[in-house]
Amino acid sequence: MIQAAPVTTLQARVAAAIAECRLLATMTEEPGRITRRFLTPPVHQVHAHLRSRMQSLGMSVSLDAVGNLRGLWQPPRSGKRLILGSHIDTVPDAGAFDGVLGVVLAIELVAIAQTNRLPLAIEVIAFSEEEGVRFGVPFLGSRAVVGRFDPSLLAVSDPDGVTVESAIRAFGLDPAQIESAALDPDAAAFLELHIEQGPVLESENLPLGVVTAIVGQTRCELTFHGRANHAGTTPMHLRHDALTAAAKWIVAVERFAANAPADSGLVATVGRVQVSPNAGNVIPGNVRVSLDLRAPLDSIREQALTRLFEDAATIARAGRVEVETKILMQQPAVSMDEELTAILADALEAAGFPLRRLPSGAGHDAMVMATRIPTAMLFLRSPGGISHHPSENVLEEDVTAALRAGEVFLTRMAAKLNP
Amino acid sequence: MIQAAPVTTLQARVAAAIAECRLLATMTEEPGRITRRFLTPPVHQVHAHLRSRMQSLGMSVSLDAVGNLRGLWQPPRSGKRLILGSHIDTVPDAGAFDGVLGVVLAIELVAIAQTNRLPLAIEVIAFSEEEGVRFGVPFLGSRAVVGRFDPSLLAVSDPDGVTVESAIRAFGLDPAQIESAALDPDAAAFLELHIEQGPVLESENLPLGVVTAIVGQTRCELTFHGRANHAGTTPMHLRHDALTAAAKWIVAVERFAANAPADSGLVATVGRVQVSPNAGNVIPGNVRVSLDLRAPLDSIREQALTRLFEDAATIARAGRVEVETKILMQQPAVSMDEELTAILADALEAAGFPLRRLPSGAGHDAMVMATRIPTAMLFLRSPGGISHHPSENVLEEDVTAALRAGEVFLTRMAAKLNP
Repeated sequence: MIQAAPVTTLQARVAAAIAECRLLATMTEEPGRITRRFLTPPVHQVHAHLRSRMQSLGMSVSLDAVGNLRGLWQPPRSGKRLILGSHIDTVPDAGAFDGVLGVVLAIELVAIAQTNRLPLAIEVIAFSEEEGVRFGVPFLGSRAVVGRFDPSLLAVSDPDGVTVESAIRAFGLDPAQIESAALDPDAAAFLELHIEQGPVLESENLPLGVVTAIVGQTRCELTFHGRANHAGTTPMHLRHDALTAAAKWIVAVERFAANAPADSGLVATVGRVQVSPNAGNVIPGNVRVSLDLRAPLDSIREQALTRLFEDAATIARAGRVEVETKILMQQPAVSMDEELTAILADALEAAGFPLRRLPSGAGHDAMVMATRIPTAMLFLRSPGGISHHPSENVLEEDVTAALRAGEVFLTRMAAKLNP
Repeated sequence: MIQAAPVTTLQARVAAAIAECRLLATMTEEPGRITRRFLTPPVHQVHAHLRSRMQSLGMSVSLDAVGNLRGLWQPPRSGKRLILGSHIDTVPDAGAFDGVLGVVLAIELVAIAQTNRLPLAIEVIAFSEEEGVRFGVPFLGSRAVVGRFDPSLLAVSDPDGVTVESAIRAFGLDPAQIESAALDPDAAAFLELHIEQGPVLESENLPLGVVTAIVGQTRCELTFHGRANHAGTTPMHLRHDALTAAAKWIVAVERFAANAPADSGLVATVGRVQVSPNAGNVIPGNVRVSLDLRAPLDSIREQALTRLFEDAATIARAGRVEVETKILMQQPAVSMDEELTAILADALEAAGFPLRRLPSGAGHDAMVMATRIPTAMLFLRSPGGISHHPSENVLEEDVTAALRAGEVFLTRMAAKLNP
């Protein structure tokens, strides 16, 4: 008879999972800080640890040619397989949970599936690269898994002049085998568990959230060209101040996004400002600002971009300066699979948790996996909304909630994939 | 019989004066750029040139202990002396006229006084230091002339570790003699001719302006403290964006100064912005901005400061951030002498030029001299409002106007000082 894991076991699992994340955090390039870029030496340690965990559960473990560690649990009478996973690389001076928690919980879910004797094949993938830190290109791991690893990426260099190709070889892998990292045809669905990395769930006092879409993103750069001049000798009406124009536009950007309907999910950020000559007694001649625009619906983002560029032109004219706009990157939104997401949402409610749907404002491996197989994503509350920072954290009660909801999800997937 | 110099002579003087400024511009620390800091080697060349010019007019020339070159013209039956002059140091990559033109025209005015046989004693001072570039302290020359050279200044070092004292000795002068640089008790008035370094006269199509006051100045620094966060995962209503608050304040600063009565002479500039962490995908956590506030009346500047600090607090509160204000420097306005300025204004009109009174937004030797003797200042139009830049220029017609007005001024001063 199949039973839910008893509460005491679950508490032990949760404590162990968090402790395991803290242990993996000690495997770092920089003593005292958590920094673990793609295929750097501490990745070997992480692999050794995860491999032993997977093997202890009877999973068959392999390392693909871009360094994704993959463990397969294939019980008798199982059919198509569910993929679970997240990434094990980190940003510099990272927290202990971004990515890693999703891998550790994936393994716990395999253990739960075993305890419950679910006839469900599960492949756990610890993606080797998601953050884009070492080579400036993100998702190297998941690109290979969905069979979209562009061979030209092999020639990209890190700041030390090491190419992706040499990094792969130095790690003991064969770049010629990257194609065989592609998903097995049996792969039927992908679920990623990840910390929210934002404040939404905490602000609403919720443990979990179901991701609707990974937002689309536009990055651009605007340069306001005025005329540098003496701050003392130039009367206000004869100025061509690039900064006051840029400031008016920054205010307009914030106002526009803040006034957008809450369910539009639009966020707009000016994060970088470069003033020239940037001296207290000189009227700014040139000001370059960044714009980061994200929304779960591409049309909303595109309309916002048009409007904010128009605002920039209007503000520049009024301020007797000129403005130049440059789009650096446009990335469409990626919706999660409706059916799989509905199963996840049902599982959440069946496990007794309130259902909150929300877009993901950050990119994730799920975004890449969704291009190949039905994909869903579960967020765990981020205390303080903090991520990419040593004080990144998770609450035990939220990890408990994730494993409870995950257990129901596995049960439903077992029924679905092996009817 | 005394006659005005004939036009042809005046045209020759004007052409010569401009050519002389261009020649002095070749005496520089940096080949290809005009850079001549306090007591650097090219200053010897400038002194040699000016000394020979002064001597050819029969002036007695001396170099005081801070390197001010001083030429005295003392005709028979003259009484109290008029001081004319400006500075010969420059900013890095300077133009050819800032300061230097005032010295060259002072010597031309001596020549005109001689031609007109005016019974007027004139001391020309080529101040050695006004810009504050080498030692970070301005007005080293005029401070000594007014007897206010604080001996502690001797210990100040330049970026190469050379102290003011060593620089003076290396130039062949004796720091112990600085006190004797103080003005002769006969010194009765000071007039400085200087390019405007701003766009006011040009915008009104005027050759000359009479300075009413050197504006007072407040420099401060404001730091907006918000919370750095992920640009994608943090909804607009949960942000504590230091930059949007700073931008609102920059807009408020510009609006306040632009709406101040035109005759208030108030100017307010945010010239420097430092954003932290200054990354396109991170909501700014801290933003530090400068404020440079100037006005010819101290009360106007003080009221503006109070109001702009209040605005910053209001804006910060509304934006859920904090703001810290720090006053770095406050310098009161210095009025020009009313009587002397009236004589200068009359001279301008008598010579046939429209009278425009305006404050000086920049500091000048006249500001220091005014603490000791009646002081006035005449501005020449700056084409394009450009200064502290290689394309700094003067128009021949404006130099002509300055010498014409100067000639009348000398005549009146001769009558006044030697009645």
